[in-house]
Amino acid sequence: MHTPVQIDSPLDAASRAELESRYADLCSQGLKINMTRGVPSPEQLALAKRFLSLPGESDFVSRDGVDWRNYGGLQGMPEVRELFSEALLGLPADYVAVGENSSLALMYEALSHAFRRGVPGSDQPWSEEAVVKFICPVPGYDRHFSICDEFRIEMLPVPMLDSGPDMDIVEALVAGDPSIKGMWCVPKYSNPCGTTYTDVTVERLAAMAAAAPDFRLFWDNAYAVHHLSDEATPNQDITGRCAAAGHPNRAFVFASTSKIVLPGAGLAFFGSSPENLAWWLERRKHRTIGPDKVNQLRHLLFFGDADGLTQHMRAHSTLLAPKFACVDRAFAQAFGDTGSARWTRPAGGYFISLDITPGCAKRTVELAKQAGIALTPAGATHPGGRDPHDANIRISPSYVDLDTLAKASHGTALCAQLAAAEIR
Amino acid sequence: MHTPVQIDSPLDAASRAELESRYADLCSQGLKINMTRGVPSPEQLALAKRFLSLPGESDFVSRDGVDWRNYGGLQGMPEVRELFSEALLGLPADYVAVGENSSLALMYEALSHAFRRGVPGSDQPWSEEAVVKFICPVPGYDRHFSICDEFRIEMLPVPMLDSGPDMDIVEALVAGDPSIKGMWCVPKYSNPCGTTYTDVTVERLAAMAAAAPDFRLFWDNAYAVHHLSDEATPNQDITGRCAAAGHPNRAFVFASTSKIVLPGAGLAFFGSSPENLAWWLERRKHRTIGPDKVNQLRHLLFFGDADGLTQHMRAHSTLLAPKFACVDRAFAQAFGDTGSARWTRPAGGYFISLDITPGCAKRTVELAKQAGIALTPAGATHPGGRDPHDANIRISPSYVDLDTLAKASHGTALCAQLAAAEIR
Repeated sequence: MHTPVQIDSPLDAASRAELESRYADLCSQGLKINMTRGVPSPEQLALAKRFLSLPGESDFVSRDGVDWRNYGGLQGMPEVRELFSEALLGLPADYVAVGENSSLALMYEALSHAFRRGVPGSDQPWSEEAVVKFICPVPGYDRHFSICDEFRIEMLPVPMLDSGPDMDIVEALVAGDPSIKGMWCVPKYSNPCGTTYTDVTVERLAAMAAAAPDFRLFWDNAYAVHHLSDEATPNQDITGRCAAAGHPNRAFVFASTSKIVLPGAGLAFFGSSPENLAWWLERRKHRTIGPDKVNQLRHLLFFGDADGLTQHMRAHSTLLAPKFACVDRAFAQAFGDTGSARWTRPAGGYFISLDITPGCAKRTVELAKQAGIALTPAGATHPGGRDPHDANIRISPSYVDLDTLAKASHGTALCAQLAAAEIR
Repeated sequence: MHTPVQIDSPLDAASRAELESRYADLCSQGLKINMTRGVPSPEQLALAKRFLSLPGESDFVSRDGVDWRNYGGLQGMPEVRELFSEALLGLPADYVAVGENSSLALMYEALSHAFRRGVPGSDQPWSEEAVVKFICPVPGYDRHFSICDEFRIEMLPVPMLDSGPDMDIVEALVAGDPSIKGMWCVPKYSNPCGTTYTDVTVERLAAMAAAAPDFRLFWDNAYAVHHLSDEATPNQDITGRCAAAGHPNRAFVFASTSKIVLPGAGLAFFGSSPENLAWWLERRKHRTIGPDKVNQLRHLLFFGDADGLTQHMRAHSTLLAPKFACVDRAFAQAFGDTGSARWTRPAGGYFISLDITPGCAKRTVELAKQAGIALTPAGATHPGGRDPHDANIRISPSYVDLDTLAKASHGTALCAQLAAAEIR
């Protein structure tokens, strides 16, 4: 599915002139569309309106005895962990800690602790290893790659299949190289493919032999409840699978409410095995007295219970699903069954992954930019910003309205076709 | 002032029996008082009541064009930086970045970046140095020492004088040892002495020669606006002094609103020179998309302007000042001018530093605990929890009500007198 497009466009020379003429039309429209990132739309933000006046005059008393208005509570309120831990991390509340507003920051922090002090099972801090490598499924999330750059972690790209990362390659790499300390995973509605790792993939990730005794899956469950229909894909039980396979500490699980309430004003979570959680809190206690408990209570009062969360995510889905359908329709109409492009049809998440004629992604993004359509830079879905096939483009349908999105999708398809015609 | 008490108590053997009898009375009262930490009282928390319903239905638009309800804004809203930067950090808004909810976490993060990547002026990351040392004024803040423990930083205690840290010692150390990379400073109403560094001290810190080219002052301005009267001690202009002395990048300045609005639900700030700030944001961009802007707007709407902040801190002061007076009264009554104890009379902050007969602090805290008065552990004000004179106790008057505080203060003084009598 995410292998490069093999068949070239069947367009002939005559159609290049036609494409150029249509592109000139596109440029003359004076578009100014930003589709670079996967951000919620104003209509989605409006769903959290009530959140902005909470907690108000609440007389809530947490049963852990920690005053939510004062210092303390390193692990986070039990009531809040209970509300989110199963839904977002597939874990019991005891094995989850609340963080600040960004799950990315928690992933960064976990790496930071690993480099400075090692993780359970480490022979030494990762900073003392000659080299640290991470497996990076591609196409993947550029901010994961950026963290690796900052930590000077060598990235090993592994292709995504319909089932998740190519496990034959992952298993061979991880078994053979003790400097491979970790692997980025967006296991559900992945960024950007929208792929959900199959049971077999999850099982193989949990059970595979690892040369490094302290190998970790960085399990970024960013889209846990971000379904595009009422058909909710369940969370994979990665921690349970790892424990059953004799690797209880293998997975660090992360999630946040950024794309549930408001980006930047949500809660982030870390979850794992009891031993990893104890390590997490032991490291963390030097860093902070505790995360924002007022925001925890705000979440608790806003959602009430698991059903409140489900209803809220349905409202998001109602706004998002038509946008994914709009892009799909535009691409189907533009590319048809020519084989000149392939794109994903995710059941959740925030992105569509578009593969076009190899060698054309950068040029397509450039043409789109000239026409006023800002797309995620070509290559961003690959470590170092280098897509070896120059074929993959991440489409972010969430922010713009439907009319604009239709224009942007048709425009993007036109740019891809023109780019392909140019190199023929 | 903070040198150990030299003159022993003039109490004789007869009075030991009397002290023991009074201690038995104390124990029989069944007290249960927690004075371990400097936390705001319920009355102080109530000052932030309106904060809990904000921002509400605000149509605020920040002039930086970043939607406060969506992603982005790595440095923080300009309006919020303008509101707090002068008051809390003594810096212009351009040289300040907003963080999450904990200034301690920002100090930790600055160290984390320094260890991984070095700071402007570093020859190499601090993690590659054979040893990294920090100067720690004592008595000092235990959480600073805890961060040093976590980073395996060797701590060099330097005594606090009435003017701030003993600069003769500081200058000699910093000039002579390139492995001294930093120094903790709580320059205003210091924890626990309540000392404000004098102009001369600040000038000497800014101007002194440092063997390490990347030496940094970790300037924890925790009590910037936490005056105990209407007489506001101004912020020291450490960044300006450093720049004037040819060390523009010497100071990292930190502050937060934890003890202004609600602990844990406030904003933390980092401020420094343009070069340091650029370094901070460059490092930070790998870690997070941005801090919580809804909480920034919440602050902006709550305080409105600098005058609103001043008024709010006056309300805190009205609640806190009588508590400091209460402790002072109790200690004066109990210790009189026997020379058996010395304690500070701060003009701001959250603590009183009590020095008693050397060798008696641990025993005093133990006796107090048995009587139901939980004090900060003796030694906590020193690196490694080891006070070489076993003489210093941190008193935290803020949380408990006045009646309780009077009991606790008299009780603590009694325990100190009994401990001294026991070793005579």
